[in-house]
Amino acid sequence: MDNMYKDLSLPNRILLGPGPSNVPDRVMKALSSPVVGHLDPAFLAVMEEVQEMLRSVFMTANQFTIPVSGTGSAGMEAALVNIIEEGDNVLVCVNGVFGERMCDIVERCGGILRRIDTKWGTSIDPEQVLKVLEEFPADIVTIVHAETSTGVLQPLEEISKITHEKDALLVVDAVTSLGGAPLKIDEWEIDVCYSGTQKCLSCPPGLAPVTFSPRAVEKLEKRSQKVQSWYLDMTMIRKYWGSDRVYHHTAPISMIYALRESLRIVLEEGLVKRWERHQKLHRNLVAGLGNLGLKMLVDEKFRTPMLNSVIIPSGADDVLIRKRLLDEYNTEIGSGLGPLKGKIWRIGLMGHSCTQKNVDYILSALKSLLSQ
Amino acid sequence: MDNMYKDLSLPNRILLGPGPSNVPDRVMKALSSPVVGHLDPAFLAVMEEVQEMLRSVFMTANQFTIPVSGTGSAGMEAALVNIIEEGDNVLVCVNGVFGERMCDIVERCGGILRRIDTKWGTSIDPEQVLKVLEEFPADIVTIVHAETSTGVLQPLEEISKITHEKDALLVVDAVTSLGGAPLKIDEWEIDVCYSGTQKCLSCPPGLAPVTFSPRAVEKLEKRSQKVQSWYLDMTMIRKYWGSDRVYHHTAPISMIYALRESLRIVLEEGLVKRWERHQKLHRNLVAGLGNLGLKMLVDEKFRTPMLNSVIIPSGADDVLIRKRLLDEYNTEIGSGLGPLKGKIWRIGLMGHSCTQKNVDYILSALKSLLSQ
Repeated sequence: MDNMYKDLSLPNRILLGPGPSNVPDRVMKALSSPVVGHLDPAFLAVMEEVQEMLRSVFMTANQFTIPVSGTGSAGMEAALVNIIEEGDNVLVCVNGVFGERMCDIVERCGGILRRIDTKWGTSIDPEQVLKVLEEFPADIVTIVHAETSTGVLQPLEEISKITHEKDALLVVDAVTSLGGAPLKIDEWEIDVCYSGTQKCLSCPPGLAPVTFSPRAVEKLEKRSQKVQSWYLDMTMIRKYWGSDRVYHHTAPISMIYALRESLRIVLEEGLVKRWERHQKLHRNLVAGLGNLGLKMLVDEKFRTPMLNSVIIPSGADDVLIRKRLLDEYNTEIGSGLGPLKGKIWRIGLMGHSCTQKNVDYILSALKSLLSQ
Repeated sequence: MDNMYKDLSLPNRILLGPGPSNVPDRVMKALSSPVVGHLDPAFLAVMEEVQEMLRSVFMTANQFTIPVSGTGSAGMEAALVNIIEEGDNVLVCVNGVFGERMCDIVERCGGILRRIDTKWGTSIDPEQVLKVLEEFPADIVTIVHAETSTGVLQPLEEISKITHEKDALLVVDAVTSLGGAPLKIDEWEIDVCYSGTQKCLSCPPGLAPVTFSPRAVEKLEKRSQKVQSWYLDMTMIRKYWGSDRVYHHTAPISMIYALRESLRIVLEEGLVKRWERHQKLHRNLVAGLGNLGLKMLVDEKFRTPMLNSVIIPSGADDVLIRKRLLDEYNTEIGSGLGPLKGKIWRIGLMGHSCTQKNVDYILSALKSLLSQ
């Protein structure tokens, strides 16, 4: 048995897909810090700092702001199963994979689902949200900020205003946008927001930062039924991350070390500078792709800077080119999903992966591969 | 903002609590290997190897054997919410915190709960299981192999036989026992088993190895309702870890690297030798505690080797002694939980923490602290 498995050896990829992004050495070093007990005073101090830094990055004063012990999808589930009670009316805006997934979860937790469907690659129209809310008394409206499957960045302020005028709570998926594009939880009055670590925070995958507004916490506290998930039950987890420190589950200690360092890096750079970097390199990439004759899927006005959906030119072999990028250029980009499979490539410029060098490299690689 | 948070600095604790245990350098090195995409062929190879090695460590041929993307508690929830459908009869054996938690989850997923309660610190009597099953037609029986809250190691073979004679499926919590005491999934005919990484596998917390027997998979496949948790829906996750590779969620890549290395270390040592090491050092610890005049909570016959519950002698200050162990000896042991709070200490000898040196060190520390 002892000879069957070799030492682990992974390639150093240039990660320009839909996530994970490349992880800075500082984060790797933090990740491999000594594991201590999850009730150790040294770890409790780390938990405090992570919560503080998450509040800064989410731009919120929400007391209840923590990393959920699972990947971004666990964040989605944690947001929805806690805020939705059986029989609640939930309006889900769908324009890609992650809106679809929210519908699935809403139904699993007994919400009464109403959907707004918009063509993949386009954004949700606030007028349409208003129209639906006028006949559907939603308790909750959910929407994706940056749709990773299409590259659409959804303006949120108008929809937030409409949602609150109709007395509903707004749940936002910011898995891909947090740390890469403006996201202002308090200013925009977002009630529940969740994200992931492996996109613009450039931490390995495994945690889902979430934040709940006081209004959302109030709904949590008024629940008449238990949350269907024990593992993601925020009424219990609040007591573990709060001053009570009531044992719930053992936190993923090493991952929380890594998240702490990645948040520190975000705050050192500064949110505004970080957004500007993503915006600038996105523009450079799009310009370069244009020079190669390639067209973007999404209208300029609604493009996510960190995830660039480019239409595969006719005659180009989707699978072969991605394989050659990986094999010959050591570079990962993403394929299309669902109806966009074979039609687009998704080029990520997220966090630590978002550099001019990477923009130049992928442009020159694509130029070479497309001309062969 | 950039000066508010310092470089991460954690103490190198000797971890002799209920978990996490100390993590070998080799595992730390694997943990910080370069992150690649979760669909990268290099990562798919790692996933394959982790599944193979998990089967070896679980002593099973079960095809469906994977690490769940959450901590041990996520493993418990994954096991229960998948195997239980609304209206199923579930018998839960309770003799500690983790049996209690299973009851909570059973009710959250609509199971009809029947409990067997035994005094904390004692084991479940197979005769009692038989008696209850004769009047309660259970679909599922659940039991904890090594109760981390008490230190009881539950014999499973007789209960497994009874469970199957009554046509029920057996779910076993092996969070603390896997890799530290005999656990033979196929030989003992366990249908669903889950564990954690941070106990006798000596990997950081964050993953929950689970295994489902063909019988359990059949029940999964026959479900008439969707699993209530999307994130832990094994009917979908099977397709991601299986040959289909259907995208579900981004796996916690770095943690899976670490698990791979920790499993490799377990298999290099060999399961039998590893169990013997835990058993031998447990005996040495108990003998040493006896020399200090300390008594164990659990009868000799039912003691877990990796988690030793010792009765706090009258006059000793529980909290102060644990604080001094941490501050002066850099060593963590666990407190009692629930009705055992203030009454026992829980001394873990798990995986990499299970050494003669650690046994000697904690005995000498306790000798010194108790004599003051």
